[in-house]
Amino acid sequence: MGGGQLNCPSPCKFGVSIVNAPVKAPEASAKEALVLFMPSGKRGRFAVGTPVLEAARTLGVYVESVCGGRATCGRCQVEVQEGSFAKHKIVSSLDHISHKGPKEERYDRVRGLPEGRRLSCSATIQGDLVVDVPQDVQVNAQVVRKAATNRVIERNAAVQLCYVEVEEPDMHKPLGDLDRLKAVLEKDWGWKDLLIAPHLIPQIQGILRKGNWGVTAAIHRDMDSSRPFIIGLYPGLKNEAYGIACDIGSTTIAMHLVSLLSGRIVASSGTSNPQIRFGEDLMSRVSYVMMNPDGREAMTKAVREAVNKLIGKVCEEGDVDRHDIFDCVFVGNPIMHHLFLGIDPTELGQAPFALAVSGPLQYWAHEIDIEVARGARLYTLPCIAGHVGADAAGATLSEGPYRQDKMMLLVDVGTNAEIVLGNSTRVVAASSPTGPAFEGAEISSGQRAAPGAIERVRIDPQTLEPKFRVIGVDKWSDEDDFGEAAKATGVTGICGSAIIEVVAEMYLSGIISEDGVIDGAMTERSPRIIANGRTFSYLLHDGEPRITVTQNDIRAIQLAKAALYAGVKLLMEKQGVETVDTIRFAGAFGSFIDPKYAMVLGLIPDCELSEVKAVGNAAGTGALMALLNRTHRREIEREVARIEKIETALEPNFQQIFINAMALPNKIDPFPKLSQAVTLPPRKNVSEDGVAGDATPRRRSREDRAARRNRE
Amino acid sequence: MGGGQLNCPSPCKFGVSIVNAPVKAPEASAKEALVLFMPSGKRGRFAVGTPVLEAARTLGVYVESVCGGRATCGRCQVEVQEGSFAKHKIVSSLDHISHKGPKEERYDRVRGLPEGRRLSCSATIQGDLVVDVPQDVQVNAQVVRKAATNRVIERNAAVQLCYVEVEEPDMHKPLGDLDRLKAVLEKDWGWKDLLIAPHLIPQIQGILRKGNWGVTAAIHRDMDSSRPFIIGLYPGLKNEAYGIACDIGSTTIAMHLVSLLSGRIVASSGTSNPQIRFGEDLMSRVSYVMMNPDGREAMTKAVREAVNKLIGKVCEEGDVDRHDIFDCVFVGNPIMHHLFLGIDPTELGQAPFALAVSGPLQYWAHEIDIEVARGARLYTLPCIAGHVGADAAGATLSEGPYRQDKMMLLVDVGTNAEIVLGNSTRVVAASSPTGPAFEGAEISSGQRAAPGAIERVRIDPQTLEPKFRVIGVDKWSDEDDFGEAAKATGVTGICGSAIIEVVAEMYLSGIISEDGVIDGAMTERSPRIIANGRTFSYLLHDGEPRITVTQNDIRAIQLAKAALYAGVKLLMEKQGVETVDTIRFAGAFGSFIDPKYAMVLGLIPDCELSEVKAVGNAAGTGALMALLNRTHRREIEREVARIEKIETALEPNFQQIFINAMALPNKIDPFPKLSQAVTLPPRKNVSEDGVAGDATPRRRSREDRAARRNRE
Repeated sequence: MGGGQLNCPSPCKFGVSIVNAPVKAPEASAKEALVLFMPSGKRGRFAVGTPVLEAARTLGVYVESVCGGRATCGRCQVEVQEGSFAKHKIVSSLDHISHKGPKEERYDRVRGLPEGRRLSCSATIQGDLVVDVPQDVQVNAQVVRKAATNRVIERNAAVQLCYVEVEEPDMHKPLGDLDRLKAVLEKDWGWKDLLIAPHLIPQIQGILRKGNWGVTAAIHRDMDSSRPFIIGLYPGLKNEAYGIACDIGSTTIAMHLVSLLSGRIVASSGTSNPQIRFGEDLMSRVSYVMMNPDGREAMTKAVREAVNKLIGKVCEEGDVDRHDIFDCVFVGNPIMHHLFLGIDPTELGQAPFALAVSGPLQYWAHEIDIEVARGARLYTLPCIAGHVGADAAGATLSEGPYRQDKMMLLVDVGTNAEIVLGNSTRVVAASSPTGPAFEGAEISSGQRAAPGAIERVRIDPQTLEPKFRVIGVDKWSDEDDFGEAAKATGVTGICGSAIIEVVAEMYLSGIISEDGVIDGAMTERSPRIIANGRTFSYLLHDGEPRITVTQNDIRAIQLAKAALYAGVKLLMEKQGVETVDTIRFAGAFGSFIDPKYAMVLGLIPDCELSEVKAVGNAAGTGALMALLNRTHRREIEREVARIEKIETALEPNFQQIFINAMALPNKIDPFPKLSQAVTLPPRKNVSEDGVAGDATPRRRSREDRAARRNRE
Repeated sequence: MGGGQLNCPSPCKFGVSIVNAPVKAPEASAKEALVLFMPSGKRGRFAVGTPVLEAARTLGVYVESVCGGRATCGRCQVEVQEGSFAKHKIVSSLDHISHKGPKEERYDRVRGLPEGRRLSCSATIQGDLVVDVPQDVQVNAQVVRKAATNRVIERNAAVQLCYVEVEEPDMHKPLGDLDRLKAVLEKDWGWKDLLIAPHLIPQIQGILRKGNWGVTAAIHRDMDSSRPFIIGLYPGLKNEAYGIACDIGSTTIAMHLVSLLSGRIVASSGTSNPQIRFGEDLMSRVSYVMMNPDGREAMTKAVREAVNKLIGKVCEEGDVDRHDIFDCVFVGNPIMHHLFLGIDPTELGQAPFALAVSGPLQYWAHEIDIEVARGARLYTLPCIAGHVGADAAGATLSEGPYRQDKMMLLVDVGTNAEIVLGNSTRVVAASSPTGPAFEGAEISSGQRAAPGAIERVRIDPQTLEPKFRVIGVDKWSDEDDFGEAAKATGVTGICGSAIIEVVAEMYLSGIISEDGVIDGAMTERSPRIIANGRTFSYLLHDGEPRITVTQNDIRAIQLAKAALYAGVKLLMEKQGVETVDTIRFAGAFGSFIDPKYAMVLGLIPDCELSEVKAVGNAAGTGALMALLNRTHRREIEREVARIEKIETALEPNFQQIFINAMALPNKIDPFPKLSQAVTLPPRKNVSEDGVAGDATPRRRSREDRAARRNRE
């Protein structure tokens, strides 16, 4: 069924012997030559006269080609490396590749071939060669606005474009137009048992005749039905096909637009999820569905419309026609996943949190109302569990705990944190109800990350005076002209990353105890500590509005971080480990918080700080990988089936772990690696009403003060 | 992939040894018994205690079951034959089957089990048995209005209903509802790699809960994509599934409604093709498309609407809900096929008569706007050539020239005759442009078959006086009270079958020569022969209207029959045969004409008259076969690919064969077998103006006259 990446445009006519290292002496015979492809390092001996493209395919080196060796699409460009490659025992020279023939000359004249580039379908092997297969064959004037990821994703897209010349109808051979099209697609490209998208059937006649029997078929070779499908058909040579990878978050929808033929990210953009108007967080959206008869439908419609608008946005940015998008990959948390697919999420709001579907799904994009090419397909990654969604699967694919031996912790913090822990031996996953505190909700002066929001905080351990930065202003609050610089934005509240920092700094400066209680005795040391009924607050900014951190705020953060840590800790117990080797923070929250403060707070377990990395929208990167390489789909489907899901609420010791995790950083777990980087304050007991039990004056070493200065 | 007809409801728990004839002495051991299933004749030894259903499935005997052995669907009924079956060496007795258990008793009490019937899922083998598997297990009160065909079609429908009890969701095992449904369908019924119709995805949750986790899945196991599909899902036990087989003719659309679970034809009906308002015949419809920008769309809409109405009609007749129809098979000539599928038929109106699609196609029925179950599938048989359509493929499947050794001629006469000739070695096909003469068009007094139309004609060879019958009247025109009886209908014209007869009778009675010229000399013998300008006419009915057969009418019939015969003859030449062994007339025309007259006219080649059979709507029967048994789909797909298509117009000797075929019965071909049954008149030459060149008085033997009397 269906060719892989090795579909020869025509049956191989040249003998080949694949050479495995160690290579024999490169005594190129009069008839054979040694060819090494870079960067793959694959090599083999080929008869002189073999087209370079054919040699590449024989070796399994992926070189794109749409025109099937007619030197018209320009997708199969390569570069000859000149010189003596001692390590490979090859002397590669431009004399060892054929001169440009008339077809290649014509392409160069009409379309322009960059200096040094050759069309591998036309250039033939004349002697030993080192051939570079460039990663960015640019054929049309694609504009690259953003590099969403530095990762190089090996390409094996589900959609391939294949130009063919169809036999004209003949009264003696009454095969239909479609049937002759299929026959030549099998003959030239190796596609067997092709099916066709039904909407194309009435169009075939016209397209074949308009193209004067030369047409380009878009073939989808990753249909859930196993058989390859003709999903698009165009007169003449069509030389571009795009795909989108999309992560539907509760707050933000993020999308990449990418060329399926070059792997190039053409545009990346995001938009807010319009479902917010039905409810800020996931559970309020589930409630909306439960309370309103048309709630599910309205939210499905809203998110699909937003996705369609975002497609318009990335297409405009990339100067791409949305009807040239042939493949779409979506991820999202389970509730977003269900609502996007038109499935009632009510079951996910109550035990046993049953998913309607956990496996991967495929649709025609139009079945989900996504406005792209009529024959485009849509793939959703599998969900791991009722609260660990396709987004977590995407992040898992992106970070690949199962691909390495280190014990990797992968957390995506939202109102519900998704936690994955494991290595190549075993991967476990859970979710923890962290609530919205990390997003600034439930915090007295909390707000979403937006201009004017405090995003960084430092507290001088001696004076207890704070300094901070706000989003949209470059200066720290203690710098000259901060007031002038902040005029436009104002200082409006505290966003998630700053909440982590201010609580951690309050702890490090002794304002709060390890139990998170603001020490009332501190009122003597600083006017910033102020009584607030029976408890105390810390005055962060005495302006309009007045921004304080209250005891309740600290409790909210403690509850949230304890929930996350308890989930992580349970997974560590399942894995039988005391520490993790490496930590990945996925999601926007992870990108803005300082790993050190997260660890001081005990949000994450002890670990080398250099091993704590923010990976941005890893879910989206996973979607992109699944879009560009269909083997990644099989990979994550297989891994998700293997992942063990832990329902934290059902674990008997969850409660105790949670209580221990309320303390900063933790009541019983040591943080030795953190302690090497940061001097944690001595333990100090303060009762709930702010009276210190241990009033030992704080002692700080010079080193510590120096370290703090460096930090800033 | 996907179970066949042998899906055991649970893994076989009993040993089995299949016995091939000759059977050993039936010494039923204490542990094993011999069971023979009728009418299939399959048999084997089974451990005592094996359920009869399981024994049947082990042997490949098709016994339906929906409930999976729960004794609730009643589909698996069998009957034990009592007595000593010497030929099979089996003594079968009711004592050799278990008594009804509580489940079977309950079914009998609630639903009623016919006398002698047992549920094979519950009854177990206790000794040697002869078990009859009835062909008409009636579970609901299905009304059988018509038996469309006497043929017994072995059942292997594409759709199967499978009741399962799905595991409830569990926080420890986060598989989705769909995923647990698939798991149990694999466990209980053997379905692997199931896919699901996308519209069902949002419904799964509700259906599972409504059925309290007991649901019936409709599985389609003949998807073009190879993987089985869940196309319907119902709470609890769903115990009926229907299909339609439909032949879209240019004039009439015919349909069977059939139970896919019992094979029973529930209703058969027809309606006229509303495209007639765009053009009477095929070519005028193609012209309409060419002349009108919306012509194709309007005709597609018209035929789909008519099909939907006809579905309503058969459903009403059979008391069936149209949403219980899960599978549809369509046939039609190429132009009807294309218009139904929304394909422009213009290319079929001009050389090289290119089909847009010749192979079989599958759709979701709703993609073609057919209103049945939302997940129903639609299959079209392949077309053989540009003028030999899916209807001819259906007729070929029904009559099966390739299944036997006789040289079979299969003709479907319409404005374009489709001709198939062959046997198990080789089959060839062609079409011939017979024009509309056989349908009464182009004939001065011609009309469609309708009340008042003359349908039978005899001419007394002595007096040259005619007698005839009209549609809707039982009496011949020379009988008493014919005038009274025909008062309601009148005598309005001549329909197709009578045109054949009157021309043949005119020839047999010497009124016309073998060249088809009305002999002017006959005016002396009868006032029925009347001058009509330079030529002569025969007065068939002197009423209002006055019905005559003109020289032009005879020419039209000669051209039509010569076209058909020339096509047949060319195929005979391709096959290298001088005669055919057996002839099948498909279509309405074939059902009404008398084979003898068709042969006297030279419409068909010489053959034993007993071997000329009208087979009615063989195209529709073929569609029915493909509906009830998916292996018939593979059969006709394979055979159509093998059939050699002859384009008659391209054959160099077509012209000469055609000219020879203008004569009655033929200028050069002898009709020895016809001559044994009918005395053909001596050759007589009459010039175009009706002057006989050979005025030899007609000599008729006494035997001939006696034969003619018998005929009448």
